[in-house]
Amino acid sequence: MQAYSSLFQILNKAIEEQQNSLNSSSPKEMYEPMSYIVGLGGKRVRPLLTLVGCDIFDTNPNDAIHAALAVELFHNFSLIHDDILDNAPLRRGNTTVHEKWNHNIALLSGDGMMVKAFDVLGKSNPEHVAKLLKLFAKTGLEVCEGQQYDMNFETQEHVSVQDYIHMITYKTAVLLGCSLQMGAICANASEENQKHLYEFGEHVGIAFQILDDVLDVYADDEKFGKQVGGDIISNKKTFMLLDAFELANEEQTKELNHLLYSKEISSNDKVKQVTALYNTLGVRELAIKEANKHTDIALKHLEELKANPSKKKDLKEFALHLLNREV
Amino acid sequence: MQAYSSLFQILNKAIEEQQNSLNSSSPKEMYEPMSYIVGLGGKRVRPLLTLVGCDIFDTNPNDAIHAALAVELFHNFSLIHDDILDNAPLRRGNTTVHEKWNHNIALLSGDGMMVKAFDVLGKSNPEHVAKLLKLFAKTGLEVCEGQQYDMNFETQEHVSVQDYIHMITYKTAVLLGCSLQMGAICANASEENQKHLYEFGEHVGIAFQILDDVLDVYADDEKFGKQVGGDIISNKKTFMLLDAFELANEEQTKELNHLLYSKEISSNDKVKQVTALYNTLGVRELAIKEANKHTDIALKHLEELKANPSKKKDLKEFALHLLNREV
Repeated sequence: MQAYSSLFQILNKAIEEQQNSLNSSSPKEMYEPMSYIVGLGGKRVRPLLTLVGCDIFDTNPNDAIHAALAVELFHNFSLIHDDILDNAPLRRGNTTVHEKWNHNIALLSGDGMMVKAFDVLGKSNPEHVAKLLKLFAKTGLEVCEGQQYDMNFETQEHVSVQDYIHMITYKTAVLLGCSLQMGAICANASEENQKHLYEFGEHVGIAFQILDDVLDVYADDEKFGKQVGGDIISNKKTFMLLDAFELANEEQTKELNHLLYSKEISSNDKVKQVTALYNTLGVRELAIKEANKHTDIALKHLEELKANPSKKKDLKEFALHLLNREV
Repeated sequence: MQAYSSLFQILNKAIEEQQNSLNSSSPKEMYEPMSYIVGLGGKRVRPLLTLVGCDIFDTNPNDAIHAALAVELFHNFSLIHDDILDNAPLRRGNTTVHEKWNHNIALLSGDGMMVKAFDVLGKSNPEHVAKLLKLFAKTGLEVCEGQQYDMNFETQEHVSVQDYIHMITYKTAVLLGCSLQMGAICANASEENQKHLYEFGEHVGIAFQILDDVLDVYADDEKFGKQVGGDIISNKKTFMLLDAFELANEEQTKELNHLLYSKEISSNDKVKQVTALYNTLGVRELAIKEANKHTDIALKHLEELKANPSKKKDLKEFALHLLNREV
């Protein structure tokens, strides 16, 4: 987005310097994988939000650069370890750390990355460190808890839609809220303004995750980066699947269970037939409605935020741009 | 030790409360293993040293209680993950976390424990948090680096005695120095005094680790908790083994290599013959001499520390008590 080009410039320079520093650190067995995963890119939404959370109060975004780097490093730590937990071969189209090196290297470089996140956070203005640490550590714990809930869901028989919202809130959304609030802390914003930014980020995160599930089923094959229907094939407990189970009558429940657990159905047929059932039950619309509800809550918090009006508008546009993907 | 009974009382109460809090946290799949490993005990030397580092300046040791808990939680995080890395079945005579639950649970509860350490640190007096975080994160990184060096040694052909000292300094000794210094920070001690306590802790740690290697070979079978000669059987690159390689003539080097890598020698014979070679080369005495050198450096720093003289004496006695094990 044009409005954020100068913030991205600050951010990309800092990330590049961070990578150079990782590359020149010893032992290389631990630091190379850290540099590798950071180098795989990604949209850098979290650290950008930290700079935005500072800049929106007309405070120099450089004041929030260490907090921004910390949040990006923490996110990358969670990617390395989540890929071990999920036994994932690929991350952003590249080999995962545990595949490229091995499990022990991935475990230890992930650990190192997490400590590094706190180390970088500690380079912030000492006046802000206590508040930043409190928020960052609390959020970090929630991210770990969310990952554990997600793992539990794999074997847990009954998961409610509410359980699911709770899980994605912890696993994904709180770190977006934290990213924005850390920027606000670095701008000496009032606690009320900090809270509005946090809630804005959290609810945008929830909406994003629900729409991501919808996209997995209803995306345009050619524009979508990965296999459409992947969540259906792997029986992932998404908002739509859980909602389908809550709405299905006895016969539909039977059909859904058959589709999920029968070994005689091809992946293609499974995707087609589960999607047909989703259409009958209207869970796509319900998911979009739920996402819109959270988007509205987010925008309400943004409205109530006392900050630079034109920068509030930029943030609103950025969020809607993130959420407005063709579903 | 009698002198520290009231500090232990403060510490044990805080650890018990921490365990209760872990036990009542959700998801239990993540928090139960955390509570389990903390409950396995250990000597609690690190958090005790944090309280000592505060109390020695006649400051209320309760002011350092969060830093003390943080260091104990960090140490326990490293135990969970090190046991995965080493594929260890037992820890303090009990099943390790990855054996009792599984690898994924051990990975994630270890992560949670590390974040929890930073979370607890953040509850310290806000005036001290920036300094505490800086030291704690720097030390945490060094501990990870030390673990990586240790892993590298397993496959690295040439390891010098100097490499070894560097490894144990990072893997073990720096956390002892950090423990003491964090206490001193909470007591608003001068930087010079902080430094003396740090160096004292670090050098006691180095001496302790070298003597631990000696004990593994020369301990009295009945008094020693584990198998005497375990390090020799597993070809662990200890101070004595590395020193033996540096001192051995051509023939002795050949013999040593034969003893380490031949599959035809029984464990008993291997221990006996390697020990005989150690005796010939005098590496036991050299190890003790090296340990004494570090003990002397430690005591010199303690002498220069400006603090309560009688409490300095207590700390000296405590350190010598830790080091004075029958070798």
